Amino acid sequence: MRKVYLDNGNTTPLHPDVLPEMLPYFTEHFGNPASIHGYGEGPRAALAKARGQVAALIGAQPDEILFTSCGTESNNMAVKGIATAMKKKGMHVIASAIEHFSVLYSCKWLEKQGYEVTYVPVDGDGLVNPADVKAALRDDTVLITIMHANPEMGAVQPVAEIGAIAREAKVPFHTDAVASTGNIPVDVNAMNVDLLSMAANMFYGPKGVGALYIRKGTRILPIFDGGVQEGGRRAGTENLPGIVGMGKAAELAKAEMPVLVPRVAAMRDRLVKGLRDKIDYCRYNGHPAKRLPGNISLSMEYVEGESMLLFLNMNGVASSSGSACTSRALKASHVLTSMGVPIESCHGSLLMTLGRENTEEDVDYVLEVLPGIVQRLRDMSPLYEDMVTKKKQG
Amino acid sequence: MRKVYLDNGNTTPLHPDVLPEMLPYFTEHFGNPASIHGYGEGPRAALAKARGQVAALIGAQPDEILFTSCGTESNNMAVKGIATAMKKKGMHVIASAIEHFSVLYSCKWLEKQGYEVTYVPVDGDGLVNPADVKAALRDDTVLITIMHANPEMGAVQPVAEIGAIAREAKVPFHTDAVASTGNIPVDVNAMNVDLLSMAANMFYGPKGVGALYIRKGTRILPIFDGGVQEGGRRAGTENLPGIVGMGKAAELAKAEMPVLVPRVAAMRDRLVKGLRDKIDYCRYNGHPAKRLPGNISLSMEYVEGESMLLFLNMNGVASSSGSACTSRALKASHVLTSMGVPIESCHGSLLMTLGRENTEEDVDYVLEVLPGIVQRLRDMSPLYEDMVTKKKQG
Repeated sequence: MRKVYLDNGNTTPLHPDVLPEMLPYFTEHFGNPASIHGYGEGPRAALAKARGQVAALIGAQPDEILFTSCGTESNNMAVKGIATAMKKKGMHVIASAIEHFSVLYSCKWLEKQGYEVTYVPVDGDGLVNPADVKAALRDDTVLITIMHANPEMGAVQPVAEIGAIAREAKVPFHTDAVASTGNIPVDVNAMNVDLLSMAANMFYGPKGVGALYIRKGTRILPIFDGGVQEGGRRAGTENLPGIVGMGKAAELAKAEMPVLVPRVAAMRDRLVKGLRDKIDYCRYNGHPAKRLPGNISLSMEYVEGESMLLFLNMNGVASSSGSACTSRALKASHVLTSMGVPIESCHGSLLMTLGRENTEEDVDYVLEVLPGIVQRLRDMSPLYEDMVTKKKQG
Repeated sequence: MRKVYLDNGNTTPLHPDVLPEMLPYFTEHFGNPASIHGYGEGPRAALAKARGQVAALIGAQPDEILFTSCGTESNNMAVKGIATAMKKKGMHVIASAIEHFSVLYSCKWLEKQGYEVTYVPVDGDGLVNPADVKAALRDDTVLITIMHANPEMGAVQPVAEIGAIAREAKVPFHTDAVASTGNIPVDVNAMNVDLLSMAANMFYGPKGVGALYIRKGTRILPIFDGGVQEGGRRAGTENLPGIVGMGKAAELAKAEMPVLVPRVAAMRDRLVKGLRDKIDYCRYNGHPAKRLPGNISLSMEYVEGESMLLFLNMNGVASSSGSACTSRALKASHVLTSMGVPIESCHGSLLMTLGRENTEEDVDYVLEVLPGIVQRLRDMSPLYEDMVTKKKQG
């Protein structure tokens, strides 16, 4: 049976050139970059090199890159670290309604500390209106956090415009770019951002390593107190093999992007068109053009999403119902409901995310198996039967 | 030139059997353990296995193990997570004066939030007196955090006795066992602890992964808010290769400990005796018997510590002046000063930490080169010259 991995938005396979770069840092260069002796030299140079590689991917300076253990840590540090550092100035934060749980629950944490958070809505395409952000600004606003691209339905937000509003208001602006970095062009200056979260495993790097871009001069408090690593802003011995892997993945992503983005987007568009031609009552979530190249979010009526995933899995196709962090929670997605997708359709959601290892044959295969699965599930659904009967009668 | 790594207390080389276990989780098993589809199965099983291996090393139940990104994260989560969860009951914490920076600065963070922290002292051997902990207890004490073994001078605290006091007072007890776990026997029940911090790279596992033991029923708040990983207590995609490596390292440490502990301790004792026979004015810091098997902390008068490290490095010997997290900070150690080591001697401190790869030949080599280095540095020291002159005159 063919195996098709369509869950790249959850975690990506390692780029084949990444692991070989990492291996020496498990063995001969096992030393601690903080060491004064010879065993620290190779690791220290590697840490500096990786910082440069990640900085180059997003148009930043190397000393503006702080390595973390994952995108969730980056988001927690950005949201909590800025808001708590700026507490004396004010306790108001602006976020969008469709932030990732690691931003959303960091905002909830702030609310418990007495902060107020305004959640700006999104339209039917999943897009934030910059005017809403501007309208939400207050004298005591100390942070705006609006994600770059949504991992669940792919919409890419007008971050540069929001950033311009933030800059004019002199409010620090953070964007969760975990889903986008390495997959579409990201430039911290063009985007007017002060903080930007990344995770290596979203662009063919290893798990267990992320980064936070912090624009020079930005005041932020750490969430790990302790040693002097990362300029005193993130204590703890560095995950050196992981960091080296992230650096290499960043370099590769930058080089491959011009070819990869149009190739993946073309596969995406062919797959979406093919499926929608064959399957009725199938909503394509998220803006059709302003979206991640690999992201296909569909909500199908009269289908139970978990069953669809299991049937796809039995046919060798790995996909998801939503965000990685909620895939076992079985709740209706806050992202889709915020966009106005009816709860019944949310339960029939399917998230397929294409990546660099996918091929046209993968697309053909899904076009071959998925419509049959949907029809089979609908044939078992009393609601679908009712609807068909009514239609015939009507 | 011979190369001798004597900085195992900073970070250890990977056990040769660890990397092969990790590799499949970079390649064929790259999936996310949270995934419902087939790519999640291998990772999910591996995560459960590693949890069991780490639990077995410390006599815990698998579901009491929470994986983190390093010892610093474990310590931050334990100290901040317990104190903030218990805030309504009280805002008093007891720590020792010689805690690692990641505990100490987490306590400082609590102080900024309005908590009060009592720092119990240590004696000249670096040991906490359990009676001091008992005397520091108050009705509003919500956490006792006393480390198991000190990485800088090796002393192993009477944790079981302190734990018994904590249990009687019904106060949660955390111990930072980052330096001890995998190197000496650790049993959470015999030690009466409710929380215990670990780091894989301290016992021949990879960097970038640690764990926190949390006794069932202990109330704790997360420091990473977000997804539902680790029972909702630590959001973020798991560093699966790292976790698999930590599990294997735990299994190996448990198996090798009965042979390794006496072998390393014998090398330590021979090296200490040999050096003290050859070098005058050389203080051996920390309790001579109640100490980590590989730890040698020396403070030499009339010697500038950094120069000693550089000369040792030039001779192929990698050692340290103190904790990994401060090794580039060049400050007098709070641990040594708390024990009553005079500041002048602190500046002549040398930390050598033996591990499983060291041999008797390594010991011979250090005995051959170090006394000459010390003498050469003393010959350049005006203070030493004064002292020798006075002695001759006296």
